[in-house]
Amino acid sequence: MRELELIEQIRRAFTATASQDRAVALGIGDDCAILRPPSGSEMLVTTDFTLENRHFRRDLHSPESVGHRCLARGLSDLASMGAVPMAAFLSLAVPSDLLAKSQGQGWITRFFNGLQKLAKLHSVGLAGGDTAESPANLILADIILLGSAPVGRSMRRSGAKPGDSLYVTGSLGGAAAELGAMLSGPARRTRAASLIGHPHLFPQPRIATGRTLLRRKLATACIDVSDGLSTDLAHLCRASGLAAEVERAAIPLHPLARRLEAGALNAALHGGEDYELLFAAPASVRMPREIAGVPITRIGRFIPKRAKQPLMTLLAPDGSRATLEPQGWEHFSRH
Amino acid sequence: MRELELIEQIRRAFTATASQDRAVALGIGDDCAILRPPSGSEMLVTTDFTLENRHFRRDLHSPESVGHRCLARGLSDLASMGAVPMAAFLSLAVPSDLLAKSQGQGWITRFFNGLQKLAKLHSVGLAGGDTAESPANLILADIILLGSAPVGRSMRRSGAKPGDSLYVTGSLGGAAAELGAMLSGPARRTRAASLIGHPHLFPQPRIATGRTLLRRKLATACIDVSDGLSTDLAHLCRASGLAAEVERAAIPLHPLARRLEAGALNAALHGGEDYELLFAAPASVRMPREIAGVPITRIGRFIPKRAKQPLMTLLAPDGSRATLEPQGWEHFSRH
Repeated sequence: MRELELIEQIRRAFTATASQDRAVALGIGDDCAILRPPSGSEMLVTTDFTLENRHFRRDLHSPESVGHRCLARGLSDLASMGAVPMAAFLSLAVPSDLLAKSQGQGWITRFFNGLQKLAKLHSVGLAGGDTAESPANLILADIILLGSAPVGRSMRRSGAKPGDSLYVTGSLGGAAAELGAMLSGPARRTRAASLIGHPHLFPQPRIATGRTLLRRKLATACIDVSDGLSTDLAHLCRASGLAAEVERAAIPLHPLARRLEAGALNAALHGGEDYELLFAAPASVRMPREIAGVPITRIGRFIPKRAKQPLMTLLAPDGSRATLEPQGWEHFSRH
Repeated sequence: MRELELIEQIRRAFTATASQDRAVALGIGDDCAILRPPSGSEMLVTTDFTLENRHFRRDLHSPESVGHRCLARGLSDLASMGAVPMAAFLSLAVPSDLLAKSQGQGWITRFFNGLQKLAKLHSVGLAGGDTAESPANLILADIILLGSAPVGRSMRRSGAKPGDSLYVTGSLGGAAAELGAMLSGPARRTRAASLIGHPHLFPQPRIATGRTLLRRKLATACIDVSDGLSTDLAHLCRASGLAAEVERAAIPLHPLARRLEAGALNAALHGGEDYELLFAAPASVRMPREIAGVPITRIGRFIPKRAKQPLMTLLAPDGSRATLEPQGWEHFSRH
């Protein structure tokens, strides 16, 4: 299969979505794509690898899940800053073996189906990218997302103030719990019939919630929970120059995490890949219980950073305090 | 080495360049980078893989050359549409073995030095990206370039008209000739002391020439010669719905290509990776002999596309005609 045919396949699969998108003036097929940002907007850009045996396993993840997760990673970065997605770009390297077999071509088609389903849900088109033959027998992808937000209004990690409340969307620990079950179960590829209830296989980036937080000026700082609550909260604290206290009992546990019993808290604190939003808001803000259909839970507060005091503290219901260390995902230390 | 340290290393190496760039409102360190495009502009986006053993070999290319070529691929795409570079993003996966050794860390530093040197030349900062541990013992990079151009003015492949002259910048065949010499010589890494005169190791993207072509409205269509004159001219012809005639004797040969004697024409027609600009302009335009210090050569013209007539024809000095087939680089067919 020639590169041009693979590009054609991508183009065909995505043309409908891209042409509906007024932000994309020129999509796949020239040296560059052309985007027209709305006037008065700034542009947000994020890139995320999806590498076989690092971010997914072909024997464990369905192609639809790999495509979905690939796009979800980038969309979640846009969500955390309150941006409206404009366009996605995909660099994709595929082993020649895979392209030579109809089974392999089927894998690629299903990968794009998974990606496209999520793309349509968020009205974002594929506007370009690159294709290559993989130099190893591994599928290698890099997704690039561009979004827009009103100039100066993007939510950053650095805006939290002492006394701000700490909130999280949805629930935590579900992705780690589902992955754990997949790894400990029989080695077969999980075929989920529905996108709902699969926080690892089909995470739902909180685009609408992030946009509402920005539009209604509810949050002073925001990040997505991609590396785990403990690691991502540490990022928020460091960027804002603050410390934080987390109320252990307030952390919303995903139903799949709850089944882990003693392991539930660990999954929620350090599991990562939940793609929920973690944000700060002044204590005076009357926070809705739900935003865009997603529950919002207050789980703690920001306090001034003091020398020799821990960056993050976990408060137990009995009032006892424990230091919370960032133990979430870090690519180079975990493998 | 932890991922965060690698990110820090990248950030440090590039902060100076990024902070000088007014287009980058927020660089590395948040969920997304924030760019502020000039008002009245459209944004151009391109992504290009640089994969070990596909686009470079560690035993053949110096790290500086790999970094330079990685960025040059993206810059050349912007040049071909006449865009001003705004920011670069780099997704980089590195084998853990390489990170564990000081020699490997040296490789990465030199890679960034090569990239940064070219970035500074074109005033473009690194504004973000992703890092990961490579799932194979291979270095994997994806470069993303964003540029801006006045709305509606970007040069596309599709604007050429019948009767337009066909021009090329600089000279052709040099990259293929230098690579050929490297492959046939002793297997050692080439350490070029200067960036000049190394069309394969250190190609010079024609940013300033592309900007001038756009600003002075000299070209009706443009592409960069990345896949080879024969393949890229075919793209121009198809996008513009035209055929083309190329005067064989008019093709400017790179001095390194000329040394190939009988093979010189082949290198110039099909070699690829010269990163020159190939463009169309009305015959009435008085084309400068040089633009931004780069020679401009008329090598043929566009004619109407007729059924059963070849897309591209090569005209010999004696008036004889031969069909020119696209035989340039296509990843999936060449390997």
